[in-house]
Amino acid sequence: MKLHGMRASGNCYKALLASSLLGRPLHWIEVDSSRGETRTPAFLALNPNGKVPVLELDDGRVLAESNAILCYLAEGSALLPSEAFARAKVLQWLFFEQYSHEPYVAVARFIAKFLPADHPRRADLPSLREKSKQALAVMETELSKQEFLASTGFSIADIALFAYTHDAPVAGIDLHDFPSVTAWLERVRAQPGFIAQ
Amino acid sequence: MKLHGMRASGNCYKALLASSLLGRPLHWIEVDSSRGETRTPAFLALNPNGKVPVLELDDGRVLAESNAILCYLAEGSALLPSEAFARAKVLQWLFFEQYSHEPYVAVARFIAKFLPADHPRRADLPSLREKSKQALAVMETELSKQEFLASTGFSIADIALFAYTHDAPVAGIDLHDFPSVTAWLERVRAQPGFIAQ
Repeated sequence: MKLHGMRASGNCYKALLASSLLGRPLHWIEVDSSRGETRTPAFLALNPNGKVPVLELDDGRVLAESNAILCYLAEGSALLPSEAFARAKVLQWLFFEQYSHEPYVAVARFIAKFLPADHPRRADLPSLREKSKQALAVMETELSKQEFLASTGFSIADIALFAYTHDAPVAGIDLHDFPSVTAWLERVRAQPGFIAQ
Repeated sequence: MKLHGMRASGNCYKALLASSLLGRPLHWIEVDSSRGETRTPAFLALNPNGKVPVLELDDGRVLAESNAILCYLAEGSALLPSEAFARAKVLQWLFFEQYSHEPYVAVARFIAKFLPADHPRRADLPSLREKSKQALAVMETELSKQEFLASTGFSIADIALFAYTHDAPVAGIDLHDFPSVTAWLERVRAQPGFIAQ
């Protein structure tokens, strides 16, 4: 399988981390969205939404959306429970990540890490950090009660939320207020097959 | 099962529509977020993220996130394929909806439908409508080639994207530029068991 992705992207790192934890290697094809490479006709034929990552199967079928890719890679493994409610709870965290976490933590990280010191978007950082802390507080509530986000154990919910949470300090978000999240980051790093971004 | 939801919310309508199409009735409990009812200690115990809908099973277990609820309700039915790749393609559309569609179409609808004519957030409408049209163009590309969003047929991907797309004109988004989306809305409305919001 091929993964069309950008190394600097946390959404793309999710697929890389899952493939390492599962022992299912992916052939990586670097696509640099900052140079317009997700807007070429060839790329838009893969994903009309013009976003990485895109998983390309050996038979040519393609799958977009980082968390849908995680589900596909993990299907049949312990990283995605098969029982209906346990599976739905993992999905709950994946949707939480895309709606209530990534638009704040990942965007704050992007602005703080990649944009010049005088860029006007830096004015957005205070409100993005505030919303990021609200998302981290939701994680803290759950992780103060159990080791991983799903009660059934380590899953792709942890992979999805690790992808940007580990880089929150780079975004200027202090994790000291979230001790259970900080301890959980270490538990994810301790998983056999873990690789850093 | 109980559904804690708000009638005016498209995200909550998804669960109602799915339950009707599946013939699995839900006991509806109205929660008005505009009156702070999603911020009470009792509600935050159900969902620390303070959002509706929340599905409550008869044994007291709870599930948040509208699209995770759709997956749970549809598990084992034709609305959610069991084959791994077909299932992942349905999930691709569910994540697309929450990341690339809902934050624009639903927010534009909310501002246009519920806020006063002189509200300052109305200044956001032009950019929200532009982003909405980009999401609709992605749907148009797929729906010009097949009847429903997933190639395997009518699924919860269609339910999730119907929830706010049908109300796009209320948000001031003209659907005449999207003839395949317009025809698809009618195909969703023709499903046995369909109920309007």
